[in-house]
Amino acid sequence: MTAFGGAVALVGDLDHEAEQLARLLHDRLTKPRGSLGRLETIGAQLAAIAGVAPPPIPTPAAVVVFAGDHGVTAQGVTPWPQEVTAQMVANFVTGGAAINVLARQLGASVTVVDVGVATVLDDAPGLLQRNVRRGTADLAIGPAMTLEEVNRALDVGTEIANRLVDGGARALVTGEMGIGNTTAAAAVIAALTGRGPEAVTGRGTGIDDAMLAHKIAVIDKAIARLPAGADARAVLSEVGGLEITALTGYIVGSAARRVPVVVDGVIADAALLAAADLCPQAVGFVFAGHRSTEPGAAAVLEHLGIEPILDLGMRLGEGSGACLALPILEASARVLSEMATFDSAGVVDKES
Amino acid sequence: MTAFGGAVALVGDLDHEAEQLARLLHDRLTKPRGSLGRLETIGAQLAAIAGVAPPPIPTPAAVVVFAGDHGVTAQGVTPWPQEVTAQMVANFVTGGAAINVLARQLGASVTVVDVGVATVLDDAPGLLQRNVRRGTADLAIGPAMTLEEVNRALDVGTEIANRLVDGGARALVTGEMGIGNTTAAAAVIAALTGRGPEAVTGRGTGIDDAMLAHKIAVIDKAIARLPAGADARAVLSEVGGLEITALTGYIVGSAARRVPVVVDGVIADAALLAAADLCPQAVGFVFAGHRSTEPGAAAVLEHLGIEPILDLGMRLGEGSGACLALPILEASARVLSEMATFDSAGVVDKES
Repeated sequence: MTAFGGAVALVGDLDHEAEQLARLLHDRLTKPRGSLGRLETIGAQLAAIAGVAPPPIPTPAAVVVFAGDHGVTAQGVTPWPQEVTAQMVANFVTGGAAINVLARQLGASVTVVDVGVATVLDDAPGLLQRNVRRGTADLAIGPAMTLEEVNRALDVGTEIANRLVDGGARALVTGEMGIGNTTAAAAVIAALTGRGPEAVTGRGTGIDDAMLAHKIAVIDKAIARLPAGADARAVLSEVGGLEITALTGYIVGSAARRVPVVVDGVIADAALLAAADLCPQAVGFVFAGHRSTEPGAAAVLEHLGIEPILDLGMRLGEGSGACLALPILEASARVLSEMATFDSAGVVDKES
Repeated sequence: MTAFGGAVALVGDLDHEAEQLARLLHDRLTKPRGSLGRLETIGAQLAAIAGVAPPPIPTPAAVVVFAGDHGVTAQGVTPWPQEVTAQMVANFVTGGAAINVLARQLGASVTVVDVGVATVLDDAPGLLQRNVRRGTADLAIGPAMTLEEVNRALDVGTEIANRLVDGGARALVTGEMGIGNTTAAAAVIAALTGRGPEAVTGRGTGIDDAMLAHKIAVIDKAIARLPAGADARAVLSEVGGLEITALTGYIVGSAARRVPVVVDGVIADAALLAAADLCPQAVGFVFAGHRSTEPGAAAVLEHLGIEPILDLGMRLGEGSGACLALPILEASARVLSEMATFDSAGVVDKES
């Protein structure tokens, strides 16, 4: 069995008994019932994921940045040259990118994985070489990759999730880098939600009206090649990206280990949609760290019925928005473990 | 001059040159321009507050919980007995309340100040005795306190802000505790925004329809005693609370020291409104940590044109929602100080 197939088989049900215990515990803590809002529902979900209430504190966290290139950049869908992917990998490895700053602040590690960068990268500490192919083919012309490459990229994602959990990570964060990847993500989202490309395609790193119209037209034509009801593997093969596919394997791998996974923006949301198609029960192990301003991100969260934790007008990717949600997850667990109860603190409870 | 009067005189203008420098620096960092959303605007505001770009990292932070009782509890506007204020003060002092858990996680100190608790409290480490009066008078019947008591409570707030900044705090968080204080806060908000009590009064810690209607009627009648155009001191005296008034002095005191102050929910928002009336330029030094579910909170933020950082469905108070925004403030400063520029990282900038 492949690493990804093994993970799909391992993903279990959420523990609704632990979830209910967390809710009951919340009602005994020294505060009006329900007054901690999302912290209470997040805490209950953490209990359901871990199978115990109160849930374990979800630290340390680990961020993975999967990097991959996109043949569709040949179509002029982004003003950034493809070599920026490799340049940013170097920036991640030396600690100068936004995700490095945020992860350092929040005590999370950053692992960079080359799953599909177009150029051969020098070995470096913190960089894992898992290149499946040197960038996707141009999805405007034909399939981005083969089904065999999809399966290999899924396995890379699952392997990395296992590696980080084995190393002690108790929350995983999705990150990615790939010039052109908002085009692939929008195509995956349009194909798997059935929404029109014009509704789920955004300006990515910043493009003008003409380039946006062209980007939508490229996506529209590419997804038209897919048969109705194509599954996530077929969609990823036709219009996906190597980093998107690895993220799909990573999300399912995290769920298989019953470790919460915090997804970032539109690229991770596309991967989450693919994960939901290949392994529906994995969705319960996921938190949406934030709502990216890219329209495809909101479309996925709405499609899956997931409310994001933050909404800060961000659209950088790299895992940056998800990373910022980590203190909220930690706080949600800590209040359940550390707050006094009405009884223990000698505070009168109006409900009793 | 009183401590508060001195603070009002000291509050300066925001430094728009430093703000502009922060914006220009953001455009050189290795990310698409504007892609960090609110982190970029918060970083620029931190620079404007500190008068330097990049701004200093706003840590360590200090939370103050001002505690006060409310005579209006005699009207049956809350199901919680008044003694819960003192019981919760004991809980804060021993570290068992939600704000203690959150502050510990985020590396912030918690200082508890008795500015108006009805009963005499035993001395305890971390508790400052600054009682101005043993709870307000019942605002349903007459003025909650005298103007002289308002001035003394303002001074307490300013003194505490100075004390914490002198002790090294680089961000201040507003916290409070006082059974009945959502009634006083809604009255202050109605009086100072001109909105009807029914639009700004909520269920506080959790009340039913009948109690809510009664609470609104009590507020309506009380604010009718105020002359048109009454200033914040007159409003605080007639319908305010001692902790709300101290928070007003604290916010202005923090601004006078050019230290960012993160306001919490509806009680702090009422104090912010009073601060804006007494010292308009203090508002630029304020961040709204979150949007409480209490309707008065959204009314104040809209009135002052402030966008909250978080929106997590919280309504606990104590400073809990504001405390959770601290990592976002810190991140906003850190990206400006620690991220690589396009030049330093050797990354191609599409704009250049």
